[in-house]
Amino acid sequence: MKTNFMKKLNDLKLKKGTMLCIGLDPALPEQRKKNTIPQKYAYGKNDNEIRLRFCYDIIEKTKDFCCAYKPNQQYVAGFTIKDHVNLTTTIRNADAVSILDYKLNDIGSSIESALYHIHNWGYDAVTFNPFLGNLETTVRLAHSYRPEIGIIVLTLTSNPEAVRYQKKATIDNTPIFQIIAQNVKKHNADGCVLGATGHVTEEEMRLVRSIVGDDVVFLVPGIGTQKGDSKKVFRAAGSNVLINISRDIIYSNNPRKKAEYYNTLLTKHKQKS
Amino acid sequence: MKTNFMKKLNDLKLKKGTMLCIGLDPALPEQRKKNTIPQKYAYGKNDNEIRLRFCYDIIEKTKDFCCAYKPNQQYVAGFTIKDHVNLTTTIRNADAVSILDYKLNDIGSSIESALYHIHNWGYDAVTFNPFLGNLETTVRLAHSYRPEIGIIVLTLTSNPEAVRYQKKATIDNTPIFQIIAQNVKKHNADGCVLGATGHVTEEEMRLVRSIVGDDVVFLVPGIGTQKGDSKKVFRAAGSNVLINISRDIIYSNNPRKKAEYYNTLLTKHKQKS
Repeated sequence: MKTNFMKKLNDLKLKKGTMLCIGLDPALPEQRKKNTIPQKYAYGKNDNEIRLRFCYDIIEKTKDFCCAYKPNQQYVAGFTIKDHVNLTTTIRNADAVSILDYKLNDIGSSIESALYHIHNWGYDAVTFNPFLGNLETTVRLAHSYRPEIGIIVLTLTSNPEAVRYQKKATIDNTPIFQIIAQNVKKHNADGCVLGATGHVTEEEMRLVRSIVGDDVVFLVPGIGTQKGDSKKVFRAAGSNVLINISRDIIYSNNPRKKAEYYNTLLTKHKQKS
Repeated sequence: MKTNFMKKLNDLKLKKGTMLCIGLDPALPEQRKKNTIPQKYAYGKNDNEIRLRFCYDIIEKTKDFCCAYKPNQQYVAGFTIKDHVNLTTTIRNADAVSILDYKLNDIGSSIESALYHIHNWGYDAVTFNPFLGNLETTVRLAHSYRPEIGIIVLTLTSNPEAVRYQKKATIDNTPIFQIIAQNVKKHNADGCVLGATGHVTEEEMRLVRSIVGDDVVFLVPGIGTQKGDSKKVFRAAGSNVLINISRDIIYSNNPRKKAEYYNTLLTKHKQKS
């Protein structure tokens, strides 16, 4: 049975003709040197208002070209329930799903507490880190909410050090990312996070797809600034894919134009794959 | 070189003669059936105020018997910067260190963003999940703050499913928890989270201690409700240990008495070990 999250996502992908997900990583101007919220948004003393104002404007400018937004917990840290509800409502009104990139990992009772809050905040799905186990419990709890919350599992990420714990590490000669993929299938999780760059090969993507089946969505970061190859992704993983781009759209001089550019590029690459 | 977090922790342990850390897991009354904030704290409509009011009272009642408090992100989700600052200030004034149990895991730039917020919130240390790698970057960034933020790494947790990814999974026949311990040592992280129950043996604890050396603190949950054996912990890991107890103190009818009971018990077990 498909969850509310997957139904909504598939409907929006068809309706809007896009596989683009935009990562919302609002960094405050004083936070770092590059890739921060432009000064024009940074008035008033409330950091949450500044970050929300920026996100609202990015959503308004890019909503015609994407079907999902992915706020990252490390950038929306300090948001209240009201801030989150305002953000998820804005995303819903922009005809997109909201995926909280939270990388949830904990013991069962704490997972339950996190999902309680994430449900109240209004998110359609949340990312999950499987290192502590508890995927079965997490999926069961997340799918018991109405609407069901989707669970998207970190499976094979493209950062160099991920090689160690996800690929070199094995159980009975099977690399860990394959074990994770088996558990995604077994416990009916909704999606896998798979990197598009660095050490992640087309063959490995194909392998994960063959393990989890066609109903599981691949959330793929690494296109855009990180120069990942979306043709490779489509060839290996098919259509049930969300391509995430963050910095290269939200911190460009013209986010609307950049979103349109990437959406057109992805559509072309999909047709050629 | 010892970080500000480790110096402060060691000073407080000596000064107060305790190794007890109290886990702050404030669950709202409507959130679940058992182990929730008592009704007497639950007035007013602001969920953050209710959770803070409860935490303040627990800290006031237990501060004579512990040297650390560990708020869990899954329970303080939705706290603003002001809420966090109020909580860490209260903990500091109670002569204790504050450890945010955040289980941080992400790519480098997002880790940087999380630490920016966690520093502004005033925490002395934060827990880290190593599954995505990036421990070296995380420690370097965390220790570049003044005061330095301590990094405590999930190494071998006691929940049953952790066996799969932490113990059964190996690289060249070395179990992953040992690889993590080697990296804790190599990259100068401040601590390891090690479970005290279930599948975690005294021999494994001893092994981790021998890998990381005596300067790394073990944060050990699982005593209390989960019936872990603190004598085993002290025999295997020595004195550089923080024993964490959450539910069994904060949701008891008399948190002060329960904290005193556990502190006395731990002192006895330490002497006998």
